[in-house]
Amino acid sequence: MDNTTDPALKSFVRVDRNSHFPIQNLPYCIFSTRDRIRPRAGIGIGTFILDLAMLESAGFFLSVFGRDSVIFAASSLNLFIQQGPGAWRHVRAIVSKLLQQGEPRLRDDRELRSRAFVPLTEAVMHMPVSIGDYTDFYASLEHASNLGAIFRAGSDPLPQNWRHLPVAYHGRASSIILSGEPVHRPQGQFPGQIAGDPVFAPTRQLDFELELGFFIGTANNQGEPIGIEAAPDHIFGFTLVNDWSARDIQRWEYQPLGPFLGKNFATSISPWVVPLEALLPFRCKGPEQIPEPLPYLRHKEDWALDIKLEIFFKPRGGSAFQPISTVNARSLYWNICQQVAHHTSNGCNLRTGDLLASGTISGTDSKSLGSLIEVTAGGTKPLKLKEKVHRIFLEDGDTVMMTGYAQGDGYRVGFGELTGTILPAGQDS
Amino acid sequence: MDNTTDPALKSFVRVDRNSHFPIQNLPYCIFSTRDRIRPRAGIGIGTFILDLAMLESAGFFLSVFGRDSVIFAASSLNLFIQQGPGAWRHVRAIVSKLLQQGEPRLRDDRELRSRAFVPLTEAVMHMPVSIGDYTDFYASLEHASNLGAIFRAGSDPLPQNWRHLPVAYHGRASSIILSGEPVHRPQGQFPGQIAGDPVFAPTRQLDFELELGFFIGTANNQGEPIGIEAAPDHIFGFTLVNDWSARDIQRWEYQPLGPFLGKNFATSISPWVVPLEALLPFRCKGPEQIPEPLPYLRHKEDWALDIKLEIFFKPRGGSAFQPISTVNARSLYWNICQQVAHHTSNGCNLRTGDLLASGTISGTDSKSLGSLIEVTAGGTKPLKLKEKVHRIFLEDGDTVMMTGYAQGDGYRVGFGELTGTILPAGQDS
Repeated sequence: MDNTTDPALKSFVRVDRNSHFPIQNLPYCIFSTRDRIRPRAGIGIGTFILDLAMLESAGFFLSVFGRDSVIFAASSLNLFIQQGPGAWRHVRAIVSKLLQQGEPRLRDDRELRSRAFVPLTEAVMHMPVSIGDYTDFYASLEHASNLGAIFRAGSDPLPQNWRHLPVAYHGRASSIILSGEPVHRPQGQFPGQIAGDPVFAPTRQLDFELELGFFIGTANNQGEPIGIEAAPDHIFGFTLVNDWSARDIQRWEYQPLGPFLGKNFATSISPWVVPLEALLPFRCKGPEQIPEPLPYLRHKEDWALDIKLEIFFKPRGGSAFQPISTVNARSLYWNICQQVAHHTSNGCNLRTGDLLASGTISGTDSKSLGSLIEVTAGGTKPLKLKEKVHRIFLEDGDTVMMTGYAQGDGYRVGFGELTGTILPAGQDS
Repeated sequence: MDNTTDPALKSFVRVDRNSHFPIQNLPYCIFSTRDRIRPRAGIGIGTFILDLAMLESAGFFLSVFGRDSVIFAASSLNLFIQQGPGAWRHVRAIVSKLLQQGEPRLRDDRELRSRAFVPLTEAVMHMPVSIGDYTDFYASLEHASNLGAIFRAGSDPLPQNWRHLPVAYHGRASSIILSGEPVHRPQGQFPGQIAGDPVFAPTRQLDFELELGFFIGTANNQGEPIGIEAAPDHIFGFTLVNDWSARDIQRWEYQPLGPFLGKNFATSISPWVVPLEALLPFRCKGPEQIPEPLPYLRHKEDWALDIKLEIFFKPRGGSAFQPISTVNARSLYWNICQQVAHHTSNGCNLRTGDLLASGTISGTDSKSLGSLIEVTAGGTKPLKLKEKVHRIFLEDGDTVMMTGYAQGDGYRVGFGELTGTILPAGQDS
């Protein structure tokens, strides 16, 4: 544990014990306000955003970036992330110090404070990172087993390779959207309900997938794998991911080259990037891996992450969110270091800002499932909600909210919220 | 046929009848020279590149871009492509006119000519387009049938969906490289030769795939499909693609989410972007589609493209390229308009510069196969070359060259060459 994650740290900014943004977190975002119309970088603290662009122009990061830098005035975090782990740690240490209870520099400067802090309620959030490539893993044993049984009934749900390598595929970067942006119900091809021939229609099996994602920090050169022990230096920070899925389209199209239109209409991410450093105290032992992985996937330290993740649901016309699932990210079979090592083992180059996501995270019991198709056992067992509402798949007007946090001693390192509402299929599509 | 593709057109620049770059082609590139060190846009004509950045600064494109534009001084074509089909046609018409035999403006201005033309031999080529997302189709019936039979012996080689939709998957954008850049033999997991457990080793089944790719011109908004009749307006131009593949890695990893590390170590493209307009005279009828596709994949015009594609091979230590395959792109079952319409049918957004590739193009006979695994019937029938050399898969030091052209009446609209040489697996990987 370094200084910035000390449980005893307190900020002069008032932070509720259930807040996602205590001084131990310091998640990054890109935001704007009515007055600060150009998107810029910030850090969440309590119910405020600390304006990093403002602090940078006031000279607070001279020791990191030198004179006249405009790293945090950029409209994505990529320029900052490119600076590498030394710069990330340095900036985090400066901000942590600046926000501490006993530190007068910002605390006692009313004028500076009024410029440096923006209430969350006044901020418009933007995509935090410019994403080059997006890779989606399939790292949850429980999800892979559940989905395999639904998609390939009668055969072994887990492919032969699954326990030997972290299965993954390339997703679509262009259609990644920010929390709050609505999702149009996609149209597509799937077998008709009566004859065997496919029809083209709005999907009847729209689903969500709860995932944990992370952004690549330092790039590697093509042809130069990242060894598993070096993997953490290439990981900048984490985000929540909702990998919206149209199950009928996916099931019809995915053989033999994998999911395509069943996934690439939209993937939502949360606006906050929780630094790896803030999550280091929450590393823990992951599931036992049998058989033991090949040497390039073995490592000395524990790299599972103890993060509680929750899914809430608000049906069309509903007034409140209802909890439908709770799962812990520590149950993921393949961890983030194994994902990075495997992804680059063939020399594939990862670039700053690339997004790697876990795949749906599911636990072992019926209250810990990360997708609706699992909750409803392939559409056979409706999800029962309050006021006699039930769901097999998502309907137009439904809203899904995901959230999560790591529970510290008296504080939470949280991810904020990731929401998305389903709109009807487009008129002219 | 518009003016710029008239077979009777001649340029004052001498162009051999077998040249790939007659006045009917006018392919774009990004190049630099010892004197012009900043990469810039150019157009190929005969054995020269016409420096578009120079012409732009001299005011030749005022009527297209207005004053003080720096569209062609950019290090990728994206800024130009973003201007849309009107600008593409306008620039093409201006350049076509400028290069015509009877047009004195450039022909008779020795000083201007010396600045405008750069010999191909003096140019260094660069990546022509900044690629956001890369999608690879599986559009050749023959290839899909051949590969299915090799990968899934005993079951139907063609998946049930194949004749209903153009199967595709997302490839990796970060590892797309330019012709001439070498390819490190990737390492990866695949079943060991004795026990059933996988090993991690340099691939033993390195292969090439001959494909035709195209770059997206105008983007569509997320949630707004591109109807099939509108598809051509979203296509800027074409390139050759070599989708290097490690068959042992691919075969082990691809279930259930598709190819990943077996493909994403490298994909090579040719440096020239042949405009769609130059290929319009070579549209022709494609294979009959049975069953008839769903309405969103039906269209009135013929959109197969009559382009002859060739693969040449030079073994390690060899002195000359030997032809190993010839195939015509017109044999592709799913055409480019169907690919665009299908890709966006769910609302997926394509961005300017995105690359869509055909998948391996194979014909019906043994001399028209687009990958080595097909040529060698899954590794059972060695490819016999001159001087008693034979190959099952690619060896270190081997070079693959792909090329292609559409044959006009007395001229060829060609793609130039796409080459790549295999390097041994990295020492430290």
